[in-house]
Formats: sequence, C-alpha cells, structure tokens
Amino acid sequence: MNPIKRVAIVGGTHGNELTGIYLVKKFEQLPHLIQRASFASITCLANPKAYEMRKRYVDTDLNRCFKRQDLENPLLSSYEAIRAKTIAQMLLAEESSQNSLIIDLHSTTANMGLTIIPSSLHPFNLNLTAYLQSVNPSVKIYQWERLEQDSSFLRSLSEFGCTIEIGPVAQGILDAPLFQKTEQLIYAILDYVEAYNQGVSFHQKDSLTIYQCVKTIDYPRNESGELDAMIHPQRQFRDYEALSPREPIFLTLEGQAIAYKGKSTVYPVFINEAAYYEKGIAMCLTEKQQISI
Amino acid sequence: MNPIKRVAIVGGTHGNELTGIYLVKKFEQLPHLIQRASFASITCLANPKAYEMRKRYVDTDLNRCFKRQDLENPLLSSYEAIRAKTIAQMLLAEESSQNSLIIDLHSTTANMGLTIIPSSLHPFNLNLTAYLQSVNPSVKIYQWERLEQDSSFLRSLSEFGCTIEIGPVAQGILDAPLFQKTEQLIYAILDYVEAYNQGVSFHQKDSLTIYQCVKTIDYPRNESGELDAMIHPQRQFRDYEALSPREPIFLTLEGQAIAYKGKSTVYPVFINEAAYYEKGIAMCLTEKQQISI
Repeated sequence: MNPIKRVAIVGGTHGNELTGIYLVKKFEQLPHLIQRASFASITCLANPKAYEMRKRYVDTDLNRCFKRQDLENPLLSSYEAIRAKTIAQMLLAEESSQNSLIIDLHSTTANMGLTIIPSSLHPFNLNLTAYLQSVNPSVKIYQWERLEQDSSFLRSLSEFGCTIEIGPVAQGILDAPLFQKTEQLIYAILDYVEAYNQGVSFHQKDSLTIYQCVKTIDYPRNESGELDAMIHPQRQFRDYEALSPREPIFLTLEGQAIAYKGKSTVYPVFINEAAYYEKGIAMCLTEKQQISI
Repeated sequence: MNPIKRVAIVGGTHGNELTGIYLVKKFEQLPHLIQRASFASITCLANPKAYEMRKRYVDTDLNRCFKRQDLENPLLSSYEAIRAKTIAQMLLAEESSQNSLIIDLHSTTANMGLTIIPSSLHPFNLNLTAYLQSVNPSVKIYQWERLEQDSSFLRSLSEFGCTIEIGPVAQGILDAPLFQKTEQLIYAILDYVEAYNQGVSFHQKDSLTIYQCVKTIDYPRNESGELDAMIHPQRQFRDYEALSPREPIFLTLEGQAIAYKGKSTVYPVFINEAAYYEKGIAMCLTEKQQISI
C-alpha cells in the first residue's frame, strides 16, 4: 500500500452536530494542530447551509447522498445532492482516493461513547482502529452496512478512514468533555498515519471486536405513525450492553413493557437517537464479531 | 380564594420537547388519569405545526408571545402570535383566569432535574410547590423574571400553576425515566388541587428555597457571532451547584479557561441549553432566596 497523501477532516455533515463543526473551526484557526510532515491535512465543513439553519439537513440527509450512482446522476438537484458532488470532487481531487483518508465527525444522542465506524475492513483501517483502542480503551467499533453494498455515507469516498461518533450529546450543543475526547482521537489518527507513512508498524493484536449491525427495529407506532411506546427505562443509555431474549425494550404510553422477541443475545446501539425517529429506527441490533487483523 | 375550577395541561409549547407532547397524547388517550371530582381537566398541544416539523417553533418562540399587549395586538400575525391568541382564548374561556390552573410542560438539555417555575408567588403556588417537594425532594424552584413585569410566558395566562422543566434530555427524543418523573409530578399537582378544593390543607413548612435569576451570560463569541468558547468541562451538567468568583465557566477553542468574574457565589441553571444559543444565553445565574410561605 502507498503512503497516505492527504487526510480530510470533515465536520458538519449534519448541521446540528456541533462537535465536528467546532473542531473543524478550531483546526481552521490553528492549522498547525493537524499538520504532519508526510501528508497534507484539509478540513471541510460539509453542510454549511444546514449548520446556518441549525438543522440536520436542508432537503435530505447529506450522509445518505454518496452512492456512486447518485454522485453521477445529473438529475439529482437537492441542496445536499449537489453538495455531495462538490464534496466528492473536493476530497478526491488531484489524487486517487487510494491515497486519501477521510475522518467524518458525528455525534449522537445515544450513549455510544467514542465509536469508530471504519470506511472498510482494509487491514490499514483495522490496524488503525486497534491503535486507537490502545490509546483509548473505551473506543468501540461499529459497522453499519455489509461492505459489498454501494454505500451512501460520506466516508465511503475513500477506502481509508472512518466516521467518529460520540455521545450522548444533544443536537445543537457543544459538550466540552466530548469535544476534547474527539479531538484527542483525531490527533491519534494523524499520529498513526504519520508513523505509518514513515514505515513504523503498530501491529498490537491479532483480532478486533466489531459490533456488526444485523437489524434495525422501529418504535411501536399507531396508524398515523405516532409513537405508541418509548425506549424502556431499563434500556435507555445502555448502548453496547447485552440484550437477551424476553428482556424489555419498549414501554408503551399506557405503561406496559414490550419484550425483545429475538432468539439470541444482541448488543443494541444508536438507542433512541433523535435523528432516527424519522428513519424508523429505535435502535440498531448488533452482533459482536471477532475479526482477525 | 375560590376553588380551582379547571386545570389545563399544556405540552408542545416547543415542538421538539417530546416529554410534554407525549404526556398530552397519553392523557388524551386515557383521560381518566387526569380527571378529579372537583375540577375539569383539559389538555392542549400548544404548537402542533412546530411539532409536525420537529422544531422548537415555526416563526418565533411561542413561549415569548403571551404579553398582554401582544395578545391584544391585531397586527401581530406570525404563526405563533396567532396561536398564542387562540391558546389564551381556549385556556381562559368561560371562567375568569382566577379559577384556572395551568401546567406548561417543557424539557431542557441542561441538567436541571425536575424544576418548577411557579406562575406567581401567590401563597397557593408556594404551598403547592412545598407539597411537590415533599413528594419528590429533588424538585427545585426557579424564577425567571421579576413578577411585576408583563410576562411573555404561556404560564402567565393564569396566576395559578407553573412550568415544569425536566432535563437533561436532548431535543427530539422521549426519555422514559424523565417522562415518568414528569407524569408523577403532574398527578401530585392534580391531587393537591383536589385536596385544596375539598378544604384539606397541606401547610408543611414555613419557607421555600427559590433560585432567582439575577443575570444571564452569553458564550464568548467572535465578531460573526460564532462561539469562541464552550461551557467549561468542570461546569457542564452542574446546574444548581455553587459557582464562586474565579472558578472556570468557559473553555476557549484554543483550550484556555475563562473564569467567572462576579463578586459573589451564584447558582447557574440552564447551563448549555440548546435552545438558548440563539438567545445569547450560556447559563442563567441565580441567587438562592428563602421565601416565607
């Protein structure tokens, strides 16, 4: 594999997730913080109009606009569809995507702590993630989609890099402790890339635990789409904890518990994420998988 | 004082504060929960259009639209100005406001637990609040404005009642434990009113601690209005805790602490409330006051 020639730090893919937005602002004011000798660092405020409006998006979720077929489709003309094409050109300009690494900064109202969602399971990313866990043992690794799919996420513009999710944090606020944790993780990534480019190896372990999304489940709803139930009090903020068959997951407005009907233990994440109410996702059920590095 | 003839439970004055909205929905589905023998109970979803849009408001903050002069001003025509007039007519119809009690349900991203903001310092409200503290000792009492002002808040439609704030909870989510705590407090209010109407007295203590807002302070900002600093990590989520002169309150993006410059100890609340970024409020400084009942 060739050296990484450029690292792009992206914030504000969602306009109301301030952690990434203000980290980008900080790095634009203090660029030496992200400069390293062996590669170029750039920053990108991905959805400035949504940020101005203090909303997740203007017309549609920008982080679902990066399928190759959509980027190549001249008929798509929403603000975010056009923005996605601009971002793709900007992040991939001049050099091939193989030499760029993208860090896309997000936050969640779920209690997911620091979560890495790698852009691919390329050995480079797995070793990088193992390094990040050695720097901060609380870091978890999550995977949304099966990788053979044409991904709609911004991070998929490059094989290298990841999304960083941090939570719990309300939309529209800056939470200093979570800001600082995300910042430290970015520096760790930059240091890793720098060392990698200089031929230093960080092979620390033989396998990684990945939380692989196997299914999403929606809130119980009435025929108008209104919630009939909320996340059960015993499940709120318990992301990454084991959920066994027959344990309660929802509580109806009337006060009745609804149990998990699955047949095996899973590990829910994105529990009660504000932005996913409209997507029909109350939580993502994951399986713990060991992946060899 | 005459008996309370009607209790209005209002949710969704802010369209993205789901706790109150879903409590109103619950009470509309199960009206017996809020019915008592001696008074009528009504519910009101205050800003349905904002709720539909999952926003705090459509044109302007509804909870700043209730000044008498604004309610009487036919020139004000924003969605919320018109809605305020409708709500005022609805809540005050038929009987004089003296016989109505209003409970306005809100939530905050600040760590304010259960906070009561009484509509006035009428002895009825003070005794009610003392009763609520006896039911749930964690309940705090906050006051915004000096009471001689013509108030712009919905609760000011009646002398009797209060706003309930609960937090911390992100905008746009239902948090079951906080939903349940708010619900229990509503039942306690209804039970208190019922007992009062039947001549039962609950005089429990001689004085109450009230957190009186004396000043609001904004985030440090640059000339474009962007934040230059965030709430200091040591201050985040520490609502109602003492803040002494020279203690840090902000942390600049560069990493420098900014100290509180006041001369006396205060008790900040609404620390880092998402909806107050646009209002220029990073926190409200309060003084602890003892009020005789």
